[in-house]
Amino acid sequence: MTQRFAARRIAIIGLGLIGGSLARALRRHADVGELVGCVETEADATIARELGLVDRVTTSVADAARAADIVVLAVGVDAMDAVCAQLQGALPAQGLITDVGSTKASVIAAAHARLDAQAMARFVPGHPIAGTEHSGLHASVDGLFAGRRAIITPTQATQPDAVARIKQLWQAVGACVTTMTPSQHDQVLAATSHLPHLLAFSLVDTLAQMNQHDEIFAYAAGGFADFTRIASSSPRMWTQIMRANREAVIDALDRHMHTLQTLRVALQADDCDTLEHSFRRAKQARDEFAG
Amino acid sequence: MTQRFAARRIAIIGLGLIGGSLARALRRHADVGELVGCVETEADATIARELGLVDRVTTSVADAARAADIVVLAVGVDAMDAVCAQLQGALPAQGLITDVGSTKASVIAAAHARLDAQAMARFVPGHPIAGTEHSGLHASVDGLFAGRRAIITPTQATQPDAVARIKQLWQAVGACVTTMTPSQHDQVLAATSHLPHLLAFSLVDTLAQMNQHDEIFAYAAGGFADFTRIASSSPRMWTQIMRANREAVIDALDRHMHTLQTLRVALQADDCDTLEHSFRRAKQARDEFAG
Repeated sequence: MTQRFAARRIAIIGLGLIGGSLARALRRHADVGELVGCVETEADATIARELGLVDRVTTSVADAARAADIVVLAVGVDAMDAVCAQLQGALPAQGLITDVGSTKASVIAAAHARLDAQAMARFVPGHPIAGTEHSGLHASVDGLFAGRRAIITPTQATQPDAVARIKQLWQAVGACVTTMTPSQHDQVLAATSHLPHLLAFSLVDTLAQMNQHDEIFAYAAGGFADFTRIASSSPRMWTQIMRANREAVIDALDRHMHTLQTLRVALQADDCDTLEHSFRRAKQARDEFAG
Repeated sequence: MTQRFAARRIAIIGLGLIGGSLARALRRHADVGELVGCVETEADATIARELGLVDRVTTSVADAARAADIVVLAVGVDAMDAVCAQLQGALPAQGLITDVGSTKASVIAAAHARLDAQAMARFVPGHPIAGTEHSGLHASVDGLFAGRRAIITPTQATQPDAVARIKQLWQAVGACVTTMTPSQHDQVLAATSHLPHLLAFSLVDTLAQMNQHDEIFAYAAGGFADFTRIASSSPRMWTQIMRANREAVIDALDRHMHTLQTLRVALQADDCDTLEHSFRRAKQARDEFAG
């Protein structure tokens, strides 16, 4: 087993699905002197206190970061810039920064624009692959990271000991940690997460606009419910994620649309071989990764 | 509760996921004098006998249909024509025919080409919405139809008392039966089942052809596994389903590709309003039908 993770103070900026669930997991699996949570408004702070996720709740990023060993940025990717701006100067000399953003190049760019070289050396970009279709203050759950992957994407400035410590943090809550470059991460996630969300939203929106949409949804079976579950995700959050990873998402979308066009031509021409060959490759790949 | 369904002899042509599961359900929920199963080869017949799904197994459609009250065609949509050809003349004067095909216009056309007017009057086209990604002789399960929908699409020739009896059959195994026209069925299923399968196959095939495909599948998270589950379905069966419902599938695909193209333009132009508006409509529709 991994050694129990210990820290004097950890600040989590944002207590949504990921931030809130990390707070729950740290309480259970780590020894943290004080767990501080930062939320946007006083109304959210009241809810966060009622939920009892952390020891102390504040609406000030600087206040949360003060004297923290580790600051975890768990806000939406579009809010990372504003949070980094408030972080600069507030963090103690040895404090580490990590984040849980769904895109990495955009978050690193925001951090680079707002943090000095010393802070960038202690910034470990990360992404636990543990999202669900739920988000917000009430979405956090126990055990969210157990057995899930967490990807760490160090920059050229990131110090190795900072990487090692953030790895330990994710391992402590049960995640399996791997490292890749920020651009590798953004391409892989565009293909496996951002594009599927775009397709699911697009499919359901297409059907919702059809004349028989009531009937269509009434007869949607089990496979359809699974296929479109991710279309129940936050529209705002996903708009911002796709925007933050625009190039890689458009690249993946273009590849997919090219395949769709090929299948459309084959279907129109009653070219069963092309259809079945493509479906067979897909089934083989899917059966392999699903184990 | 529905009255217990009774029949002297029911023949199920094809003992895959649907046919085999119907046999299991009828054994439990109906009083059937003899349940006869028909499979394609002697090798399959041996497996079917070992599985014990029916009272008697044969490889002859005519033999299975002889003296049957009801013949259920549970073969792939591409095999309906050949089965109907073997059925003509073998069915007793009062015997009913129904099917479980995923497309209705194509199956009705096959029946119309092969069966005489008397048989067409007793043909009740149907489709239990109960597929999974599994198929074949070993795929059948208990309780597959409980709480699921079964759609019946009578033709202009179908007699009302035949419709009533097939309704009772599906109700007996727990399904909720509704009636619509064959073309309504084909449009609704194109949108909610055939197109999603095409998209899932296409997405996984697209990713499998990318350079980093090992990494891509290694980091595919829970949402992706759900989204692509239907890509593990039978490539051959789905090729034939899409082929049999070509026009409606192409229509639904074109609508979806139009939406995708709109979203691509919006993403490229950083037009967040269009993206978020579309995602929001989708989430609302999805949350409503998932209830």
